[in-house]
Amino acid sequence: MRAAYVEQLGPPDLIRYGELPAPVPGPGEVLVDVLATAVDPVDTLVRSGVFRTPLPFPFVVGRDLVGTVAAPGSGFTVGETVWCDSLGHDGRQGAAAEQAVVPADRLYRLPPGVAPGEAVAVFHPAATAHLALFTHGGLRPGETVLVCGAGGNVGSALVECAVHAHARVLATAAPRDHAHVRSLGAAHVVDYHADALAARLAALAPDGVDVHIDTSGHNDLETAVGLLAHRGRIVVMSGARDAPALPVGALYMKDGSVRGFALSNATTAELADAARAVNDLLAAGALRPRLVEYQPLSATAQVHRRMEQGELHGRRVVLRP
Amino acid sequence: MRAAYVEQLGPPDLIRYGELPAPVPGPGEVLVDVLATAVDPVDTLVRSGVFRTPLPFPFVVGRDLVGTVAAPGSGFTVGETVWCDSLGHDGRQGAAAEQAVVPADRLYRLPPGVAPGEAVAVFHPAATAHLALFTHGGLRPGETVLVCGAGGNVGSALVECAVHAHARVLATAAPRDHAHVRSLGAAHVVDYHADALAARLAALAPDGVDVHIDTSGHNDLETAVGLLAHRGRIVVMSGARDAPALPVGALYMKDGSVRGFALSNATTAELADAARAVNDLLAAGALRPRLVEYQPLSATAQVHRRMEQGELHGRRVVLRP
Repeated sequence: MRAAYVEQLGPPDLIRYGELPAPVPGPGEVLVDVLATAVDPVDTLVRSGVFRTPLPFPFVVGRDLVGTVAAPGSGFTVGETVWCDSLGHDGRQGAAAEQAVVPADRLYRLPPGVAPGEAVAVFHPAATAHLALFTHGGLRPGETVLVCGAGGNVGSALVECAVHAHARVLATAAPRDHAHVRSLGAAHVVDYHADALAARLAALAPDGVDVHIDTSGHNDLETAVGLLAHRGRIVVMSGARDAPALPVGALYMKDGSVRGFALSNATTAELADAARAVNDLLAAGALRPRLVEYQPLSATAQVHRRMEQGELHGRRVVLRP
Repeated sequence: MRAAYVEQLGPPDLIRYGELPAPVPGPGEVLVDVLATAVDPVDTLVRSGVFRTPLPFPFVVGRDLVGTVAAPGSGFTVGETVWCDSLGHDGRQGAAAEQAVVPADRLYRLPPGVAPGEAVAVFHPAATAHLALFTHGGLRPGETVLVCGAGGNVGSALVECAVHAHARVLATAAPRDHAHVRSLGAAHVVDYHADALAARLAALAPDGVDVHIDTSGHNDLETAVGLLAHRGRIVVMSGARDAPALPVGALYMKDGSVRGFALSNATTAELADAARAVNDLLAAGALRPRLVEYQPLSATAQVHRRMEQGELHGRRVVLRP
């Protein structure tokens, strides 16, 4: 089968496109014919070695796929349309190939009527959003969520997921993204370069922010704690090299918390829970990628290079074998 | 009745000792004859106005009491020995008087055989420890807890509560407190001024620290995050003016969190849950104050002054009407 893979960790140029032996499913695994796979930012961190995780070599890159079941087993029948968003790390081969083997507890059925190419573009941002808002953020209906950096892929998914859960969503974004973020259901969108940003947000959340999520890695915890409601939660998941000041007294006087998470740490049960929610949103048409660019699998190296050069903001690239 | 009270917020000298009208219980409240009341650090913050909370004036100071039920009502019968640890803030009169009125959902029965003077000395540190470890820290049996500053009242209660919950307890303390902390069941006690403290603690917790609590207000979050286990929790509850650097990437790569809380924010349900645990520990003889000094109620102003001057480290003062 044809695959995009590396023989060792390093720069994008190391990604080869060529023939590898087709994978063979073991017990509890399902063989899938890949229809589409997405390129996630974390794929570049795995490939470069910045994110350390056990990998087999030659290593097929990529986490997410939509495909059809190629051989029966583990309760799946041939031809069913299925998806996965947790390949390509922690010892598992990746998704960027004509075929992939997926552990059955990481394989979910795609709701009928959902386009595979659009679906594969939203799995990663949407699962991230679900885990941030619910698994780690403990969001409840009626609460106020602040999404800082709502114009990007994860930011947009956060707004969609929070709105669908009947939260009141405040967002910051660049002016060029305001109409888009509003179209997703955000109650208010503020320019993140606005003067007196904290005061503007405080005025929009007079009872405080229950769940605060910054997708930009900016992590201004002083402002975040200031805006926080009683028992509010600040979810952090980006800005790896940051060490911002945390005003401890203001945090504990509110029973506030700062909760970190990485999607790569999610358990299979948490991923399955997120998958149920993502499927519900997909079936309801409430989760749509803003801009999808389709490329052949042979372009994987080039897409990694463009992503690392920051050329893909707000755009998802889907590879088709 | 005689009481220790203030007519306005300010320094310890404003505390008067004299006659006030006896309180009259309303619906759902119980009249209690006070046997003993403790002086907590937070009492000085309420009296001075540093901790802002609604108060009636003249305001009787103090949170904690042990007493006997003086009039039947709300399921309590006259003469029962009862306790409370949440008077004296949020609109409620305090405990430092011959009689107090306590909402029935904040009143708990003292287990038989427990000395009122010793019990009243441990309520506040023990309830704080329970909320820190379990309500906010989510401690489970077999986990590793690090208590930084284990020699003080809250530190000692944290060690006792964690040991009783079958956690493995590591502690830091001044050398003069090591024997005491070891006697409470800590597996290891390290001098908090030791060279390479973080490396020593890391060697003692090869799988990481699951719950990290610093009672000293030092809040070295860089070290705390470094020591943290996967999904570990750092509980912060002191050091009001601190704004230490939080290494965000290291935190979220571990799914770690920083959880702040103040005992004053606890709900009646959370306080009742803590009270059940405190009663179990008291009945088992597993919760004992290190050093109790008894004073008459008329000495309240003087005790507040000594506490503010830092003269009461590791010592609890119990006032008896």
